[in-house]
Amino acid sequence: MGALDEGHFHEVLENGVELEPPQGIEGQPETLAIEDAVKVLLQGLGEDINREGIKKTPLRVAKALREGTKGYKQKVKDIVEGALFPEAGLDAAVGNAGGAGGLVVVRDLDLFSYCESCLLPFQFKCHVGYIPSGQRVVGLSKLSRVADVFAKRLQDPQRLANEVCSALHHWIKPAGIAVVLQCWHMHFPSLESFLMESNSQGWLKVLVRSGTGAFENDKGGSWSDFFSLLKFRGINIDNFLAEGSIASWCPSQSWSSLKGSSINGQLNSGMVTAVDSILRSLGEDPSREELVGTPVRFVKWLTNFQNTSFEMKLNGFVYGRGVDSLKANGEPGVNHKQEQLQTEVNLSFWSQCEHHLLPFYGVVHIGYFGFNPIPKSLLKSIVHFYGFKLQVQERLTRQIAETVSSLVGGDVMVVLEAGHTCMISRGIEKFGSSTATIAVLGRFSADPNARAMFLQSLPNSSTALGPS
Amino acid sequence: MGALDEGHFHEVLENGVELEPPQGIEGQPETLAIEDAVKVLLQGLGEDINREGIKKTPLRVAKALREGTKGYKQKVKDIVEGALFPEAGLDAAVGNAGGAGGLVVVRDLDLFSYCESCLLPFQFKCHVGYIPSGQRVVGLSKLSRVADVFAKRLQDPQRLANEVCSALHHWIKPAGIAVVLQCWHMHFPSLESFLMESNSQGWLKVLVRSGTGAFENDKGGSWSDFFSLLKFRGINIDNFLAEGSIASWCPSQSWSSLKGSSINGQLNSGMVTAVDSILRSLGEDPSREELVGTPVRFVKWLTNFQNTSFEMKLNGFVYGRGVDSLKANGEPGVNHKQEQLQTEVNLSFWSQCEHHLLPFYGVVHIGYFGFNPIPKSLLKSIVHFYGFKLQVQERLTRQIAETVSSLVGGDVMVVLEAGHTCMISRGIEKFGSSTATIAVLGRFSADPNARAMFLQSLPNSSTALGPS
Repeated sequence: MGALDEGHFHEVLENGVELEPPQGIEGQPETLAIEDAVKVLLQGLGEDINREGIKKTPLRVAKALREGTKGYKQKVKDIVEGALFPEAGLDAAVGNAGGAGGLVVVRDLDLFSYCESCLLPFQFKCHVGYIPSGQRVVGLSKLSRVADVFAKRLQDPQRLANEVCSALHHWIKPAGIAVVLQCWHMHFPSLESFLMESNSQGWLKVLVRSGTGAFENDKGGSWSDFFSLLKFRGINIDNFLAEGSIASWCPSQSWSSLKGSSINGQLNSGMVTAVDSILRSLGEDPSREELVGTPVRFVKWLTNFQNTSFEMKLNGFVYGRGVDSLKANGEPGVNHKQEQLQTEVNLSFWSQCEHHLLPFYGVVHIGYFGFNPIPKSLLKSIVHFYGFKLQVQERLTRQIAETVSSLVGGDVMVVLEAGHTCMISRGIEKFGSSTATIAVLGRFSADPNARAMFLQSLPNSSTALGPS
Repeated sequence: MGALDEGHFHEVLENGVELEPPQGIEGQPETLAIEDAVKVLLQGLGEDINREGIKKTPLRVAKALREGTKGYKQKVKDIVEGALFPEAGLDAAVGNAGGAGGLVVVRDLDLFSYCESCLLPFQFKCHVGYIPSGQRVVGLSKLSRVADVFAKRLQDPQRLANEVCSALHHWIKPAGIAVVLQCWHMHFPSLESFLMESNSQGWLKVLVRSGTGAFENDKGGSWSDFFSLLKFRGINIDNFLAEGSIASWCPSQSWSSLKGSSINGQLNSGMVTAVDSILRSLGEDPSREELVGTPVRFVKWLTNFQNTSFEMKLNGFVYGRGVDSLKANGEPGVNHKQEQLQTEVNLSFWSQCEHHLLPFYGVVHIGYFGFNPIPKSLLKSIVHFYGFKLQVQERLTRQIAETVSSLVGGDVMVVLEAGHTCMISRGIEKFGSSTATIAVLGRFSADPNARAMFLQSLPNSSTALGPS
């Protein structure tokens, strides 16, 4: 069984704590190989790899990827074995701690994994249940630790559920194991789809489950018991996809049907080879069926953030379309107070964190004083053009403000609210956190009331900032 | 300044990763000293320290406490210095990246700390804002890492906010820092207060803030901007307590006014000395003003879970009060189908995890077939008597089921839904997770429909399982 074939694990893990401390990753041959590959990717995007903001990006990406796939080196046995506790059962004959239907369920464990199809992290909530047997129970935190062993690999949801389930069954030997995962994959749209004004953003959700023992044949109503406890969290059994039907849950499967990358017709073969090298350095086999197309998909996606072709498009687009007609209304001598506060809120954006090569996404709110509103389509174009490159949120906020300022003459305020993938898939793993940045120009800098007027108009919503 | 007095930090920290890996804690003199102290505490509670379930508890507690206070050894400088990035400002003269009012806010960071007054963990949401200056910004995750340095110490909310704020200001040198913390302290009632039927359970919430620079004088409306972005998360400025007014936020301050412990009149001085020794082993000074009463408060609280006096009370109480009158109705020969499903849901409980000496808490739902309902006060007493001892959730569920079964003749189902402090304050830090356990007896074991009937009657609520 795949999940239990641990012959390739070459490091011992004691109680969920890796023997190889994180700082040991730096300088190892695998880490250096990934760093070299990331440099190739950055250069393929037209970036200067010695630029201050990204010169440490190869190391950051390498560490994140190795830490995010450390599950390949972890042993479930060592996590579980020290945490099995004797516990008398209600029914001595059956040996189940809570009687024949006595479930133990740990719910709402926030975890993340890496999608094997596109190499982006995906977030999931894990719910694990088991029916204790043999007069013993397992420490509750171990269910989370074991799930994390398989999450910290390149995965797809159903395999992940199956592997967690099989491993727990093998080591705990209960009367049954149930695993339910609610998974969210980011639906990262391409620049082209944004230009076509299609609404392809948001989150792809799948619900998968896996069961052993009493949950395999399900004659005794065990799944029904389990779902009754999960229903509090909004899970409905009708929402489960049949096993095997989610081969294409990752949106990269449709990216690969695009002709080449979104901007270039040609893929950079050096970049594809670099991703192949990354997979090898993580201990994966790039010829594994599910991974064969991954390097091409990852490069196609990454090419959305190519630096060069991009500025050109923005120049051609924004300045040819908006400036003159808007400026014509800004007649000299007209008192500012006759201008109105114009707002455009909740424009969605997607961007790529240049420190970690990971997406951040959310909404932009733009306020400015002017006689006429700027067309929403123009503001959207500005947001997307500056979003589709290697960025930091602070700079993106400023660039949008400066560009809008050039259209309306200086009184501009921009608020960005974003979820950052690197806040969950790096060391701090802060699920549910979000970041807001403000840029202010002209009247908004000097006048707190102007800022307050705009801020009070912002919607009280954060659904765009992450799956929840 | 306290927060910046780092002379006592004797280990270097690189980029938020401790040089002393967790597994190194085991076997160190400080760890062994804490283990010895925990053995004294367990023996003081009347426990057999060689009992299977708790024989590793001293080590688990020692590791948890040392990991949970590792902030004493961490340096903010090393976290921040490598993560300052050059970023051109909108306003070159001021040098603020987002213009003169250009805030960067990271919101909703879930963290925990240890209450210096009672040594229980408390959970908080941290919101940090700063106004970048000097043409540089800091990596977003570092705001969380720095907050965690001060959280991983014995704290009170206002000092925690002040220390995070001062340290960030010192090392980032921005135009201003704002820190807002929403803190929840568990209001763990004593057994006595339960017996008195008082409703003292729940969470104590405080909201604290600290500011430097533009947030200190607040002439420019910076706090207003900050709160406008936090208001999405329900924060209202009117809810902030004035600085200094929350000295007694910890409920242990009122425990100490009780005469002695809840059950024994006398405090075990060996236990108090043991807690004093734990404080020393964590690198703290037990004579520090805020810690002077901590050992006594902790022991008073822990004595709620004393093993001995407790069984006696249960025997005297339950069997003297309920059994005969209830059994009288269960006449032989009466068909089970004439009995009705009786339910009592959402009985609150508090208990103490014997693996980690940390609280778990939540609600109990009890279903049984019988002619008459068992008085709610009797069920509450059963729940509290089994709760107020060193426990595991699975056993508590079974014990409640068995005791109720002795009253009604065997068809019993018990569901416990619980939040476990050890799930957030140990390594996995799974905020928002919860655990459900089921025990079934008699008809409920064999009949899935009976279980389903009871499970469907359960309330769709989990507010008792944690602060959120």
